[in-house]
Amino acid sequence: RSTQSNTHGSTQSSQRLLAYSDALISIIATVMILPVAHTKIGEDEELKESVQVLLTTKIGVYLMTFLIVTVAWAAHVRLFQVIVRIDDCLALLNLACMMLITFLPYTFSLMATFPENHLGILLFCGCVMVIGLIQALVVVYAFSRPFLLKEQIQTSEDLKVYKHHILQVILKVPVMCFLASIFSFIFLQLSYVLLAMVIFLPYISQFLKWCRSKATGEEETPDPEPLYQASEPLSKERLEAFSDGVYAIVATLLILDICEDNVPDRETVKTVYNGSLVSALSDYGPEYLAYFGSFVTVGLLWFVHHSLFLHVTKTTRFMGLLNAFSLAFVGGLPLAYQLTHEFPRNSNNELEAIQVSCVIIFFAGINQLGIWVVALYSEQETLHRYVRYAGRDHIFMLAKLALYPCVALGTFFLTCILSQFSASIFHLMEITVPLAFLVLRLLVRVALAGLRLIFCPERAIPRTVLEEEQDALVA
Amino acid sequence: RSTQSNTHGSTQSSQRLLAYSDALISIIATVMILPVAHTKIGEDEELKESVQVLLTTKIGVYLMTFLIVTVAWAAHVRLFQVIVRIDDCLALLNLACMMLITFLPYTFSLMATFPENHLGILLFCGCVMVIGLIQALVVVYAFSRPFLLKEQIQTSEDLKVYKHHILQVILKVPVMCFLASIFSFIFLQLSYVLLAMVIFLPYISQFLKWCRSKATGEEETPDPEPLYQASEPLSKERLEAFSDGVYAIVATLLILDICEDNVPDRETVKTVYNGSLVSALSDYGPEYLAYFGSFVTVGLLWFVHHSLFLHVTKTTRFMGLLNAFSLAFVGGLPLAYQLTHEFPRNSNNELEAIQVSCVIIFFAGINQLGIWVVALYSEQETLHRYVRYAGRDHIFMLAKLALYPCVALGTFFLTCILSQFSASIFHLMEITVPLAFLVLRLLVRVALAGLRLIFCPERAIPRTVLEEEQDALVA
Repeated sequence: RSTQSNTHGSTQSSQRLLAYSDALISIIATVMILPVAHTKIGEDEELKESVQVLLTTKIGVYLMTFLIVTVAWAAHVRLFQVIVRIDDCLALLNLACMMLITFLPYTFSLMATFPENHLGILLFCGCVMVIGLIQALVVVYAFSRPFLLKEQIQTSEDLKVYKHHILQVILKVPVMCFLASIFSFIFLQLSYVLLAMVIFLPYISQFLKWCRSKATGEEETPDPEPLYQASEPLSKERLEAFSDGVYAIVATLLILDICEDNVPDRETVKTVYNGSLVSALSDYGPEYLAYFGSFVTVGLLWFVHHSLFLHVTKTTRFMGLLNAFSLAFVGGLPLAYQLTHEFPRNSNNELEAIQVSCVIIFFAGINQLGIWVVALYSEQETLHRYVRYAGRDHIFMLAKLALYPCVALGTFFLTCILSQFSASIFHLMEITVPLAFLVLRLLVRVALAGLRLIFCPERAIPRTVLEEEQDALVA
Repeated sequence: RSTQSNTHGSTQSSQRLLAYSDALISIIATVMILPVAHTKIGEDEELKESVQVLLTTKIGVYLMTFLIVTVAWAAHVRLFQVIVRIDDCLALLNLACMMLITFLPYTFSLMATFPENHLGILLFCGCVMVIGLIQALVVVYAFSRPFLLKEQIQTSEDLKVYKHHILQVILKVPVMCFLASIFSFIFLQLSYVLLAMVIFLPYISQFLKWCRSKATGEEETPDPEPLYQASEPLSKERLEAFSDGVYAIVATLLILDICEDNVPDRETVKTVYNGSLVSALSDYGPEYLAYFGSFVTVGLLWFVHHSLFLHVTKTTRFMGLLNAFSLAFVGGLPLAYQLTHEFPRNSNNELEAIQVSCVIIFFAGINQLGIWVVALYSEQETLHRYVRYAGRDHIFMLAKLALYPCVALGTFFLTCILSQFSASIFHLMEITVPLAFLVLRLLVRVALAGLRLIFCPERAIPRTVLEEEQDALVA
């Protein structure tokens, strides 16, 4: 009866609406890497200088878009942690909200291209204000039909207090944007500062609170209204769905480029390659290698993320921030792919492109490691019971997480030492990493068996892998 | 304990892996529309002829890719309906499988550009064969660790029979591809026929079986081994996830184009528009309108799909096929968007572009309606109990589903009658459709209240909307 009443009539479970929203937002967060990746760099140009020019505009736009979209996503998550059921009206309002969020990257492009013009900032603030108003409408609508709300709030007596509190939190951002849009006519720089504050405010206040509690040694005082606070943990399911979206779109952006640009022209094949399709395709060889290498890297970073979140029970806001950083670097991988295959072999630019790739992969990996470290720091709340105490799972997880940062760091130093290092070798290395995972698995097992043999020999009766796995399942 | 044992040690719930696979496959199915949408059509060219040229190559590639990827997805769904838990090894094998699936669109492009060369078909068959081998490996691995399998199979005694049966089904396609690749050296046309058979075989055999059972009036004989048959219903969750992915990527492909192409150049603004950004942007006005119009259309088609699948409990293979057709047309919407805003106002081409859009929207909508009709046809299995008997939900659902086909048809005839009809009016119409949904809701309610008043006046005590909804929830 409970599953039925969820979907009966006009009231529905919100699960699929949220999954769709997550997919939309994650794609939007990532697409702004495309203008960066598609920037043409002449072969005679120095990559270093080009990257510096890129950094100031397009990469900046990409990172800002990623962060602001992540903030919008976090707000969406928190809103729908309160509203757990939807009806048609809420679904339509949510779609309107999504439409405006997908428009945010464009306003950012405008701001970056014309920083001295206040049109970009006005458009951006306009969008954010309308999004805020729609969200306020959603809250008012949902509170007028309390059966849409979370059980805990539904049964509480001061429904009105909650409503006002949530409305206050939601309308903070639009109000700041309204101020920013007014200041844009008077003093443009100030409105940019205001906007930056909007993005980082929740994290900064959270960080300050955390620092203070650590400095004074006191326990963090629990919030008087714990239901709609900035420090409330984000839904783990939605964090996973959002991350999946980013990984999926990044993995497929690559094939999208290949399909559009790397199918040879009929005429070219006839005239340049004497009608031999094979020789025409072999010219694209490095690109295929780059594609497979990048896909493997994205796939394995997803795999590590997946393994990591199997052990996590709750995601704090700080873990969410680290995850956003990790994803932002993952989103940079198409740029790495584009860079590594477009320079002539053994040029200085090629080596630098590989180094850029290593840096991107390193930071994507190290932020994942950061999530694990933060989770361990407050393991009582954030981790499953069975990984808390050191054990095989624990060590294996750490090894998995450390693999990519180590490989990236190693490759970076190899490029400094070996001048013969080339993009093809780099991509081949990327493709062989999955084998390293399997070897790692074996190594951890052997090492643990060795330790067991040394410290408690009576338990060291050799068991097959199968028995151990079945044991783990039963345990 | 059950949730814990799912994720303990090396054995994990497969849910997130499947969600990620769905996201990847749905994006891959849709990206091939981009080369179609990006085909430049000169303003002096007749759209009719250009579309005909396009039809023979790029649209063909798009549709074939969509269908073959959908077939690969269906095979993946069926495989992981048997294997319900995964470990690291299976996750890595699955990623390898995904990598090869993402490469299929490229081989299709090659085939379409060089139909007389056997390289494309060889590459395609090679990919499919490797995918088949990986899937066979997955099956062998999973059967060597029976705790990864579905409960029903785990406890059955003839595990080996199941294994051989599943392997047989899986290896059918690679064997056919192997034959096709051999024939490609001897008689190229035959290998294309073989490939087409691979794609349509399950549907054809299913259709023939259905026809036969209808013709003879007999009940369909239940399969002797009902666990891995072509007629087995697809998992509803995965069908939803796959559809969500397609809708999400289609909705965002639009903004991707806008962000890359429609940010004016600094120099252009200075020289052409005298430094006025507003007038530069107002030149892009039609594009924004087209974007919002298309987003609304995609969003509402998703909304209808969402409403439809709230009532569905099981998806038969035929419903899956109709859903694939509907999604293939939804994937064509970026083409519609591209066409409607690139022609001069009130030209013949513009009207034809609107007609193409109407046709695409019409077929996307009519296939959704088809799913509903098919579901009603065997409502005992496929629908929730409360929608089976005619009632408010029933009528409202039908009205929702009929809305888009009707609007598209109406617009199509308007373009034939009114020569003043323009793309801007079309996009404005698209944006106002959501209001029609709300009006529809009101109309259905009023009509039902009217009927109730006529036929059973004693129950017609006026109730507020809120009370009715609460009733629905409690019922």
